[in-house]
Amino acid sequence: MKRLLVVFLLSVNVLLIAHSQNKELTLSQAVLGQRREFGATTLKNLTWRPQTNAFSYIKDNCLMEFDIKTQKEDTILKMDNLNAILVANNLPKIKNYTQVEWVSQFAICFNLETNLIVFNLSTKKIESNIGYLSNAKNIDKCNNNENVAYTINNNIFITNKYNKTIEITLDSNPGIVNGQSVHRNEFGIKKGTFWSPLGNYLAFYRMDETMVTDYPLVDISTRIATLKNVKYPMAGMKSHEVTLGVYNVQTRLTTFLKTGEPKEQYLTNIAWSPDEKSIYIAVLNREQNHLWMNQYNAQTGDFVKTLFEEKNDKYVEPVEPMVFLKSNPNQFIWQSRRDGWNHIYIYNVDGALVKQITKGNWEVTDVLGFDKSERYLYYISTQQNPLERHLYCMDTKKGVEKRLTTIHGTHNPVVSMDLGYFIDVFSSTEIPNQIDLYSTSGKFIKNILKADNPFKDYSMAKLEMVTLKTRDGKFTLNARMLKPASFDASKKYPTVVYVYGGPHSQLVTDDWLGGARLWEYYMANKGYILFTLDNRGTGNRGFEFEGVIHRNLGVNELDDQMVGVEYLKTLPYVDANRIGVHGWSFGGFMTVTMMLKQADQFKVGVAGGPVIDWKFYEVMYGERYMDTPDENPEGYKNADLKNFVTNLKGRLLIIHDDMDETVVPQNSFTFLNECIKNNIQVDYFTYPQHQHNVAGKDRVHLIDKIITYFDEHL
Amino acid sequence: MKRLLVVFLLSVNVLLIAHSQNKELTLSQAVLGQRREFGATTLKNLTWRPQTNAFSYIKDNCLMEFDIKTQKEDTILKMDNLNAILVANNLPKIKNYTQVEWVSQFAICFNLETNLIVFNLSTKKIESNIGYLSNAKNIDKCNNNENVAYTINNNIFITNKYNKTIEITLDSNPGIVNGQSVHRNEFGIKKGTFWSPLGNYLAFYRMDETMVTDYPLVDISTRIATLKNVKYPMAGMKSHEVTLGVYNVQTRLTTFLKTGEPKEQYLTNIAWSPDEKSIYIAVLNREQNHLWMNQYNAQTGDFVKTLFEEKNDKYVEPVEPMVFLKSNPNQFIWQSRRDGWNHIYIYNVDGALVKQITKGNWEVTDVLGFDKSERYLYYISTQQNPLERHLYCMDTKKGVEKRLTTIHGTHNPVVSMDLGYFIDVFSSTEIPNQIDLYSTSGKFIKNILKADNPFKDYSMAKLEMVTLKTRDGKFTLNARMLKPASFDASKKYPTVVYVYGGPHSQLVTDDWLGGARLWEYYMANKGYILFTLDNRGTGNRGFEFEGVIHRNLGVNELDDQMVGVEYLKTLPYVDANRIGVHGWSFGGFMTVTMMLKQADQFKVGVAGGPVIDWKFYEVMYGERYMDTPDENPEGYKNADLKNFVTNLKGRLLIIHDDMDETVVPQNSFTFLNECIKNNIQVDYFTYPQHQHNVAGKDRVHLIDKIITYFDEHL
Repeated sequence: MKRLLVVFLLSVNVLLIAHSQNKELTLSQAVLGQRREFGATTLKNLTWRPQTNAFSYIKDNCLMEFDIKTQKEDTILKMDNLNAILVANNLPKIKNYTQVEWVSQFAICFNLETNLIVFNLSTKKIESNIGYLSNAKNIDKCNNNENVAYTINNNIFITNKYNKTIEITLDSNPGIVNGQSVHRNEFGIKKGTFWSPLGNYLAFYRMDETMVTDYPLVDISTRIATLKNVKYPMAGMKSHEVTLGVYNVQTRLTTFLKTGEPKEQYLTNIAWSPDEKSIYIAVLNREQNHLWMNQYNAQTGDFVKTLFEEKNDKYVEPVEPMVFLKSNPNQFIWQSRRDGWNHIYIYNVDGALVKQITKGNWEVTDVLGFDKSERYLYYISTQQNPLERHLYCMDTKKGVEKRLTTIHGTHNPVVSMDLGYFIDVFSSTEIPNQIDLYSTSGKFIKNILKADNPFKDYSMAKLEMVTLKTRDGKFTLNARMLKPASFDASKKYPTVVYVYGGPHSQLVTDDWLGGARLWEYYMANKGYILFTLDNRGTGNRGFEFEGVIHRNLGVNELDDQMVGVEYLKTLPYVDANRIGVHGWSFGGFMTVTMMLKQADQFKVGVAGGPVIDWKFYEVMYGERYMDTPDENPEGYKNADLKNFVTNLKGRLLIIHDDMDETVVPQNSFTFLNECIKNNIQVDYFTYPQHQHNVAGKDRVHLIDKIITYFDEHL
Repeated sequence: MKRLLVVFLLSVNVLLIAHSQNKELTLSQAVLGQRREFGATTLKNLTWRPQTNAFSYIKDNCLMEFDIKTQKEDTILKMDNLNAILVANNLPKIKNYTQVEWVSQFAICFNLETNLIVFNLSTKKIESNIGYLSNAKNIDKCNNNENVAYTINNNIFITNKYNKTIEITLDSNPGIVNGQSVHRNEFGIKKGTFWSPLGNYLAFYRMDETMVTDYPLVDISTRIATLKNVKYPMAGMKSHEVTLGVYNVQTRLTTFLKTGEPKEQYLTNIAWSPDEKSIYIAVLNREQNHLWMNQYNAQTGDFVKTLFEEKNDKYVEPVEPMVFLKSNPNQFIWQSRRDGWNHIYIYNVDGALVKQITKGNWEVTDVLGFDKSERYLYYISTQQNPLERHLYCMDTKKGVEKRLTTIHGTHNPVVSMDLGYFIDVFSSTEIPNQIDLYSTSGKFIKNILKADNPFKDYSMAKLEMVTLKTRDGKFTLNARMLKPASFDASKKYPTVVYVYGGPHSQLVTDDWLGGARLWEYYMANKGYILFTLDNRGTGNRGFEFEGVIHRNLGVNELDDQMVGVEYLKTLPYVDANRIGVHGWSFGGFMTVTMMLKQADQFKVGVAGGPVIDWKFYEVMYGERYMDTPDENPEGYKNADLKNFVTNLKGRLLIIHDDMDETVVPQNSFTFLNECIKNNIQVDYFTYPQHQHNVAGKDRVHLIDKIITYFDEHL
């Protein structure tokens, strides 16, 4: 009887598995579920707890820790308990537990709606509560948690630990922007306030945009539509002017650094000296081919000296501020691509190069820092393979590097230099997510987590990695292919190239799903081959690979994409007459380029938010790669897709959001006009009130629109 | 031999006809050629020459005349000769000879680029030359041709015969508009300046729009897109305020009429008394249900009296200013729909009704005027049939009317009351254009012109007129149907309803092509049935037929359109599963209404510039039919098509121009948003830089887009 039962259960099980592996993703799951419903299990907010042997993380709404000596997991604080204390103190509840931060061994810090809280775990008391003004944005606390700087509209406020608030800028002209990211977030700029290391000063960007032309966007959500002007400096046109103010918390006086003329320069990679006496700025000219690493006196604003310069015939693009050494505050780490690859250099404050730390035909992608002795430097690089990211440790004395992560894939380790351990968080095309504990000597200690395949019950498209060569044989091009689960090599499949192709991007990675988005798997499973290739011009492959696009956007990128298409056509299961292309933004530019300049190759294209004419793109990104329209008329002409509309043979859908502040709608509208003038039919759609691509729930509609377009026309 | 030749020629002829009748219209011909390439031959600028027995016209760039006594045609002046004289006087050439006007027996008047010229035909000299400022718009000359009024931007200028120019308004606020049409061209308003009969005064509209909200439109034709704000008073929102100024040419002083409060009223149908002492205004309240015919003192601006009032539970819509009698300047003609149909009334200036001249269940569509004795009144009406227009003469003494035109169709006669003749210019479904001379007693004198069928060499769709009954049996509905030339009753055809359906419109007429546009014939010939029906709510059918739509737009119109569709479904050659609908503006509203509220009936819809939500439409037209959103929440809700998006079953393409100042783009954008929110796929297209529908060469692209959409999806 018992045996019978077991057999019976087993067969049910088999049936269940057979059944469950056939589950199909819904469109909504595919679009919205990649990080939520189908996000691989992980430990959130994984970090080392100061002055302990433990790392902490969030699990089941509890702040947990794992002691590497005792190898025990402990609960530190439940969110419910924390919230009970907050409510008892007349404070709102914390909503997102993953955004707490250690400020000391026993204290965590987090933001509530309009409060910065430091909470003591041992006393269970609120140590500090800085209540700042509502509508605060760009909240930036100083290191000692005694002051919070933030912006309301275009001015900066500071609220101190006594809850006293001072408005430190008083500009009423809406064209003057204080304390926010400038230069359209290029050059690695993500914020506009910079506390000095000890918290005595706040440096801040002041951007004067009054001379920049407005681009008018229209908000149709009001009773009657209203104007939303955005300052949009277009390539070759007047740009904004940025300066750097330094506010002294004691004297309440602000000094502006004497950054001088010409005013249309870029003040990038702001860094404080550890003693708070100096501010360093990587000053870049508008032409973006000459960088001066300048030192300024933080108190007087005076220019002190230029430490060094970098020049390049094409462009210089600094994106990482200097980082000072701890033991030797006269030295700092500087990252530069000056030898063709992003590498680490040590300079001293006299401007003398102490040493190039890393070297080779690969790129450093992240510098994690030195150990206590400041001899061993930890960093992430592409040395193993541009598809992968591994942790390395460089013995800067010997100049010998060691790879500390071994399994192929993408590693995002959390290193404790003090303890000599790192938590290796990684994934790969085969591993959804895995967390292992290692010593920094590379010794495996313990597996902490191995995530299940979130798609184990689902019928999923199959991923294949592909490598090809550029036509000149000089570079390897990385690509990936998705085939439907039901793939049958004797059949012919319609094939869609999903493309981006622009600088800073890498779509193909040795990561879970291969860097693809889940909707690509969904679409492939409907009976498509999905193909993506990172052409020259994309990121993490060195300056030569990227810089080939200079003054000539769309040309080499197209060449490489066609290498991919030629490869596809060699595959018996690719229907060579049914190849489509889709991409957004730069990928929209590439999509239209491919549809017009290789019109015989593509039957259907869907271009989202495409740049059509680079003279409608902004100064910073645009001029870096294209110079100005006056300086490079031929390059602009050849990249202006309005000049090629009569080539169109296939079916083209353009999608452009009406509130797109990044690639302004003028691009697509002038393209439509040119098509209309030439009596060429194209399709068009818009997502009202969206801004450059479509996020949130509406994205399901977008992806449905895109896939349906291929279903109907490819 | 001769006979043989004839036979030979005949057979060639037959071949030629057989061949030539197979010519197919190109899309471009169908869209652009209706008035030009395929316009029926006619005599342009047909008019009676003063103090002669002749009528004049333009033929082969010559001003010709035809003497009805001698029955001889003579050349009066060749345009080349006129231009030679103009050039000799350092004036530009006249470009459009059809815009000359008789000012006396021997003098013609016309505009050059910036000159008003009076030219004497007997002396061959320029009698008068008023050179006004460049950029002049709204050019309005006084009766004696001694002054020209015009606007530059928002101010009024007058240039006199001595070429002296005076700016008579000096408003610098762009929200103040002088001398232009007001109230968004409703109430028959087409201009903003009104010369007094003897030319001593200029009355002009002054519109204060400063309190009206701007609708922001974006012009993408500039280097960087620029804002184009338009003042758009939306239903229920603050509207503009209009006053009427009277400028005295002698004193150069302006008096404003004391039109009083509330300021948001409509000053319509401006008329001068013959003695220039009074101005009459049909003042309408914002609610548009109460009209006061008010007299004002033109010199003091004082209100004199109200002559009479008109009220209606639904709306009063005066569109024709009073016209004073010549022999009895204390009496005037007034047109009113107060008895349910537009009829002619005679009033005296005391406000007493002298007589209702016309009466019956039909509408006067044009009053041509009295004979010298002011006993016989000539007018056009729908008395014979709403599809037709005929000339009538009413003996106002006897109260007996006589129809003077006999052949069915649409007559646009040019009557000479003095001579007792009229030139009957007419067309019908069978007659492209015909011009006959008659005496006003109705006696046929002579045929002047019979136009050839412009399509005689073309394969053309066939027109059929259809009449149906409203469901309640109360009204006849007129409709037309186009069938392909190759029509085969045993086949089934996809069918497209072309709809407008809004007030003031009539699409089905007994006119050449039956009121259809040539592209409808083109489309039908591609293998479609094209069907159009004038539903209740449309024009020229009396107040009950039109006014049924009050507070309830889209409901009765839809009922009647469905009567048409039910009829179509009874036809064996109509494919009941392949019925589509297309329309623009109100027709766009109807298209979307039909697609959503009768979703099972229509497979495909193409809606151009649709009103989606009447709260986004303007005050004048919108509130006349719908009252305000606060006054009529149910009506607005039921007509708000955003509330019905989930009904959509068929395929819907919305086309909306980005510069649409009439139906603002907010309509379509909010509709798209609602579709996106509900994950409903619709298609969308825009014609950048176009304004409510697409004119000019780009229209070929538009019609191609529309027809292609039906080709692909119906």
